[in-house]
Amino acid sequence: MILTVTLNTALDITYHVRELRPHASHRVTEVTERPGGKGLNVARVLAALGHEVSVTGFVGGGTGQALRDGLAHTPGVADALVPVSGPTRRTIAVVDTTTGDTTQLNEPGPQISPAEWSAFQEAYEILLRSASAVALCGSLPPGVPVGAYAQLVRTARALAVPVLLDTSGEPLRRGIAARPDIVKPNADELAELTGAHDPSQATRDARRRGAHTVVASLGARGLLARTPDGDWRAAPPRAVRGNPTGAGDSAVAGLLSGLVERLPWPERLARAVALSAASVLAPVAGEFDRAAYEELLGRVGVTAEP
Amino acid sequence: MILTVTLNTALDITYHVRELRPHASHRVTEVTERPGGKGLNVARVLAALGHEVSVTGFVGGGTGQALRDGLAHTPGVADALVPVSGPTRRTIAVVDTTTGDTTQLNEPGPQISPAEWSAFQEAYEILLRSASAVALCGSLPPGVPVGAYAQLVRTARALAVPVLLDTSGEPLRRGIAARPDIVKPNADELAELTGAHDPSQATRDARRRGAHTVVASLGARGLLARTPDGDWRAAPPRAVRGNPTGAGDSAVAGLLSGLVERLPWPERLARAVALSAASVLAPVAGEFDRAAYEELLGRVGVTAEP
Repeated sequence: MILTVTLNTALDITYHVRELRPHASHRVTEVTERPGGKGLNVARVLAALGHEVSVTGFVGGGTGQALRDGLAHTPGVADALVPVSGPTRRTIAVVDTTTGDTTQLNEPGPQISPAEWSAFQEAYEILLRSASAVALCGSLPPGVPVGAYAQLVRTARALAVPVLLDTSGEPLRRGIAARPDIVKPNADELAELTGAHDPSQATRDARRRGAHTVVASLGARGLLARTPDGDWRAAPPRAVRGNPTGAGDSAVAGLLSGLVERLPWPERLARAVALSAASVLAPVAGEFDRAAYEELLGRVGVTAEP
Repeated sequence: MILTVTLNTALDITYHVRELRPHASHRVTEVTERPGGKGLNVARVLAALGHEVSVTGFVGGGTGQALRDGLAHTPGVADALVPVSGPTRRTIAVVDTTTGDTTQLNEPGPQISPAEWSAFQEAYEILLRSASAVALCGSLPPGVPVGAYAQLVRTARALAVPVLLDTSGEPLRRGIAARPDIVKPNADELAELTGAHDPSQATRDARRRGAHTVVASLGARGLLARTPDGDWRAAPPRAVRGNPTGAGDSAVAGLLSGLVERLPWPERLARAVALSAASVLAPVAGEFDRAAYEELLGRVGVTAEP
């Protein structure tokens, strides 16, 4: 199976209001709830592609129970989450029904104790023994050491499980030094990491920091990959309009599935770009428009990068 | 015991953010959660005054469990809530830490089935048999008939339990026709009910619609009461600044406790006004500043109303 790790899982809540006005009172006309967090989105896309997938990370409290209930109704995704005493955080997306614009409120996440972090590392090591690849996704909850991803990368590499890291800031900086197989920063994360704003330069810098492969997601312009086998750009045939939340997670799912299927890099990148664009056409993160994916897949342009 | 009914209970969540900006993403720096809904606030104040009090209404889902857990830690308030399949709603108050201004998001509440509404009415009738008074508070969740309060008022009157109604709109219009002992509208609710914007006129109109006593809450100006024993105005000695949420609920607690203690109307009104002002000085609804309450109590001005 493929393992995805989401240390700061979330119960993603969406509210519809007519129009959000600061300091006013609003009647919410529609409420939806679903399991959230980047690794959970990656897992849903992998499962939809036919892969066996397990999700781990921390879960707790009533919000955690609601997340697990939602996960139990997600076909193909096995729940290997580790219970903690603090409650799983909520994220709230407030959508203005008049314009479709969204205001986001993100809780920080539960305080993780040293004992809970140790228990997670043990569970992670056991899960890795049956994993063909692992993705480490998203932010760290309070209490987890900033070098957490570096540690999880080292454990995966010691067990010879290919590891992809998708995070930002100091956890990315520390994690990349532990030599993950793939990092997938977006343009902002890459610039923050390297100080370089030109993706061509910044991806080179990021590789020098320790990643075997750097795949930068450049929004509507697709992906730029620097790998041990060569460097490529992959771009969608046309710009797609829709909900960009989760597009990066779909790209991660494309890269991971291509890795375990041992596809050549140009095919992995084409899949990642097509999935990413097809997920922009889906209303929520972790889903994609299958017809659009199949149509786009053959039309992604992959070119060698100097 | 005194019974309070909150058909649309809520898990009240407060978020601190630096400054809420529409269509931006926000890190929530502080999260607090507590059991909410007008009848629960009334109950907390009654318990703090030394009364035995039970709360009923609907509760369900993970949010309902969080509400019950919070209630279990509320001294003196007995949980007589009736389980339903839908989840208890959340209300979210987003406080800007820079200014203290609050943006409110209120979920609509769970869909109540006809069987759940019947089960509630049975539980309510059993609870009334040991109640010295009952308060019916707040909005109706979806699925509960708009004439619900009229029915609950009739049941209480048939069992000779004094009943106070604190709601708005059509549920108030229907409920008042069932002849509750007391209604406690605020100025807006009174104007909506009667079409009259002068409280003196509007309280007379409201009594003619069926309420034995009308106590209008006029914000910082205190209360205006029209009772079978006479008419009075009660005003605080000074304006207090703070958090007005829950001030009306504290007034209800003052009126109900005065009723079961058989205080003369002027004393009941003085208590309600002092509690209401003292709750403006407390940070959250359902609490009051006890020292301020005791100091204010002797200084509320109660005058006969022509």
